[in-house]
Amino acid sequence: MQTRKTALAALALLSPILAGGAKRPNIIFFLVDDYGWPESSVAYGEEVYPRNRQFHTPNMERLAEKGVILTQAYACPVSTPTRTSLMSGMNAVHSHITNWTSMAKDEPSDAVGGKNGAAVYEELDTDVFRRPEWNINGLCPEGFAAPADVQVATPVVRLLRDAGYYTIHVGKAHWASAGTPGSSPYNWGFLVNIAGTNAGLPKSYLGTDNFGNKPELWNMAAVQNMTEYYGDDIFLTEALTREALKTLDYPVAHRQPFYLYMAHYATHTPVQKDKRFFSEYKEMGLDNGEARFSSMVAGVDKSLGDLMDYLEERGIADDTVIIFMADNGGNADVKSKGGVPHTQCAPLREGKGSCYQGGIRVPMMVYIPGKTAPGTRINTPVVPEDLFPTLLELGGVKAYQTTQPIDGQSIVPLVTRGSQYVAKAARRGEITSQKEANRFEVPASVSGIDPDRPLFFHYPHQWKVEYRQEVDFLSTVIAGDWKLVYVMMNTVPGQHVADGVPFELYNLREDIGEKHNRAADRPDKVAELARLLGARLRAWNASMPVVRATGKPVPYPDELPLQ
Amino acid sequence: MQTRKTALAALALLSPILAGGAKRPNIIFFLVDDYGWPESSVAYGEEVYPRNRQFHTPNMERLAEKGVILTQAYACPVSTPTRTSLMSGMNAVHSHITNWTSMAKDEPSDAVGGKNGAAVYEELDTDVFRRPEWNINGLCPEGFAAPADVQVATPVVRLLRDAGYYTIHVGKAHWASAGTPGSSPYNWGFLVNIAGTNAGLPKSYLGTDNFGNKPELWNMAAVQNMTEYYGDDIFLTEALTREALKTLDYPVAHRQPFYLYMAHYATHTPVQKDKRFFSEYKEMGLDNGEARFSSMVAGVDKSLGDLMDYLEERGIADDTVIIFMADNGGNADVKSKGGVPHTQCAPLREGKGSCYQGGIRVPMMVYIPGKTAPGTRINTPVVPEDLFPTLLELGGVKAYQTTQPIDGQSIVPLVTRGSQYVAKAARRGEITSQKEANRFEVPASVSGIDPDRPLFFHYPHQWKVEYRQEVDFLSTVIAGDWKLVYVMMNTVPGQHVADGVPFELYNLREDIGEKHNRAADRPDKVAELARLLGARLRAWNASMPVVRATGKPVPYPDELPLQ
Repeated sequence: MQTRKTALAALALLSPILAGGAKRPNIIFFLVDDYGWPESSVAYGEEVYPRNRQFHTPNMERLAEKGVILTQAYACPVSTPTRTSLMSGMNAVHSHITNWTSMAKDEPSDAVGGKNGAAVYEELDTDVFRRPEWNINGLCPEGFAAPADVQVATPVVRLLRDAGYYTIHVGKAHWASAGTPGSSPYNWGFLVNIAGTNAGLPKSYLGTDNFGNKPELWNMAAVQNMTEYYGDDIFLTEALTREALKTLDYPVAHRQPFYLYMAHYATHTPVQKDKRFFSEYKEMGLDNGEARFSSMVAGVDKSLGDLMDYLEERGIADDTVIIFMADNGGNADVKSKGGVPHTQCAPLREGKGSCYQGGIRVPMMVYIPGKTAPGTRINTPVVPEDLFPTLLELGGVKAYQTTQPIDGQSIVPLVTRGSQYVAKAARRGEITSQKEANRFEVPASVSGIDPDRPLFFHYPHQWKVEYRQEVDFLSTVIAGDWKLVYVMMNTVPGQHVADGVPFELYNLREDIGEKHNRAADRPDKVAELARLLGARLRAWNASMPVVRATGKPVPYPDELPLQ
Repeated sequence: MQTRKTALAALALLSPILAGGAKRPNIIFFLVDDYGWPESSVAYGEEVYPRNRQFHTPNMERLAEKGVILTQAYACPVSTPTRTSLMSGMNAVHSHITNWTSMAKDEPSDAVGGKNGAAVYEELDTDVFRRPEWNINGLCPEGFAAPADVQVATPVVRLLRDAGYYTIHVGKAHWASAGTPGSSPYNWGFLVNIAGTNAGLPKSYLGTDNFGNKPELWNMAAVQNMTEYYGDDIFLTEALTREALKTLDYPVAHRQPFYLYMAHYATHTPVQKDKRFFSEYKEMGLDNGEARFSSMVAGVDKSLGDLMDYLEERGIADDTVIIFMADNGGNADVKSKGGVPHTQCAPLREGKGSCYQGGIRVPMMVYIPGKTAPGTRINTPVVPEDLFPTLLELGGVKAYQTTQPIDGQSIVPLVTRGSQYVAKAARRGEITSQKEANRFEVPASVSGIDPDRPLFFHYPHQWKVEYRQEVDFLSTVIAGDWKLVYVMMNTVPGQHVADGVPFELYNLREDIGEKHNRAADRPDKVAELARLLGARLRAWNASMPVVRATGKPVPYPDELPLQ
């Protein structure tokens, strides 16, 4: 009886593969935390910027040579919204998860300065806005009792698992606060969880600190499942990589396709020294903070290389998709990272937390064996919610239902047919420089994605204790070359900052650093984009900050006087 | 290519099942912590003792009715030695893991009283003995770099996994200290790990305490992987059960045989109130401590019932073996448990930590669908190292190699053929009472196990800060009805305790409570058993306490003057 049942079971496992004849590649999603667009030796821009020259990331270069660089990949300004978008396929504005989730339940992270993630918003308020209503506890997987302030979603990982994938979580989770089902990777469809919790950062990267599991260090960010390395002279990035490699052995031995979500805590704060790589950066003349941060980047790069080596050694490199991405822009507002504050994402403006490009434009590469043209660049913008349908297409999952609407589009045609299209153009001599490669457009007829489709980013929050106009209470739409920034603070009488007007307009092609506000020249474009942004925010019932003085929310941008 | 590979993969998964045509049942190993032989309404003894009447464990009764009660199951006096024996098949004396492992590396647990598992042995020494040399960091899985003071073993769980089992760890691990590979269940062959670490107890059982994950509570015993329940009014036993049930869904849906190691932290200290069950025990007239402890037992009982319900609901109860056991005797030396100290295991003498029966005789039941005769009792003694070959036989794993010697014997014939033998005898009217059932002997010719095979327990340690002759520095051999207790303290001139002689002799059949020392009547038996114990200790190079005054180890018992 048992034998027959088990045989049937194995056939059941086979059936989805045999039925459609679909290929089910392994998939590694390699997600880096707080990692800026120019913070690698892979130059995503039209040129190699000075910031690129501060890093040596040979394994990222190796991936770039094998796969496709997505020069205009976007993420949300902070971690949780990107991660919940990846998991749900919903835009973060739509899911009302526009800020990071606190470690503890029911504690809004808006302008948090307390210990252990305790919210101290009321005390530290700007006095201008109350925090908006948003889903402060994050995302909840379908099938669980969702607490208040939580969006429910059918998880992409569960769909992959149910299609036969061996699903592995290693690293940072951060979809939801503790005390909610979303805080456990197991509830999202992962079969294995190493180190994924409610925390959005590690208390320490150092094995000698037990990764924070010491009485004098502990808070909820102490990394779990790492007892094996306590006291060892090892950096968390390395330890997580070793755990991932060990875990891969099982599905590889059983030839079960795997989905590895390798979500490094690095390069999030605390900025700590990865001793293996620190001295080479000091020798380059970097300051201690810069060298510390660069050493963390180098550790991530080695991790990527170790995974690629593993795939080659096991003979499965040609069966394994690699997606490389960062969850938001680089942190440009932390002293421990060294350098000149607010320049870390240069030539992009600002960094993490901001709707300026430094906060949302992120590194991304995709390698699909035999499908992506090696060493190509794709300039069509991509957003986190695209990854949901992308992963399912890669996994051959065609018929599925979700409780949530899917706002993204699969980028599989973009990176496969699109990159082949680019490669052909290059062979025809139409692309002869990095600059030309970064300006080459793949038409929607080839990629399935309109290169000018509007992208929406919305941060109706105050990120840190001190208000900063470059980061806080901004909303934006990008459509083609144009970008509108809605400065919500400037809608409040007497609170005007910056140019004192609520709209800034930039031409990103001409002005990658968003230095030249074109709003005065092009009121028509301002009006067009304000209407586009307003309509979408309204359609998604977007959360807006509430003006303390009036008790009214900030108006949607198309409610302001426009041309 | 991929399709073909994956098809081959699935066939590879099938092959061990198809090849031998062997049945591979699911296996649940349900291990309870610090849970005494009489602490349930299942009466393992010849009669129902008063202590049995203090508990109501209907699901344990349900399992007893379905399966076999092992009335003479033994474990080591403390946790780690039993757990490492289960994992390795080695007797704890043989592996030199005779005490529990500290949470931190390289800190002997002998007479520990410090915070966070910090050893304070030197200060708290008895002044008589130095601690023996033993493997203070516990057990290390084969294939990893073993630190000093660690025994290496091929893990039974890995062998099961490699044979096709989906291996799940839920609860307490405690095979090794942090900073060693043995502290991570993943390294033992578990595919899933929930809450297993270096810790041997939970910092708190309460969800409202975040299971210890609060700044004011935290130490390394704070339970990991439970973020989902932080702040909830839930007891750890219930939360772990829910996690186990969720995890079972995957192998059940895929009809992959599973091995669930459901190792509850309960009923270890801290003795906390499981509110669901507390009041019924208070109403029985128990004191608060007793009612708290009983409520923890009731929670474990419900967990067992929930698992059995799950199996029935999914239609796999007839495909699932259940092994129920405790890891050592009940704690009889903790105020928070209430009652009269040192009576908790009555009629057995003493409790956890001791080589008297209260420390080592434990509850055990086995159910093998269609194989074990329902409602029977087996009196042949069983020891933890027997479980290694037992699990492999149950899992149909025949050809395997281990780096370590296997000291145990499979009890599958004992509980299958043996229980059928008992059932037949009962049908013939040869067993008409519980007392008769507890005295009925299954011959080795039926069970494969000599009912008189000698059993060795050895605790060359001081358990707590204050020396107690009933617990510390004892060594023992049981052979048939006779038991020799070697009181090592009495080998040291001027340090005599108890009767002042190094040997005590008990007839367990006549004197379950070890009240009547027969050493003076039966010097022949003392000599016989001392030689047996000495020879085995010598063969295993057993660790002995070292006499401070002389710098010499305590002699093996056959080195003393004997008749």
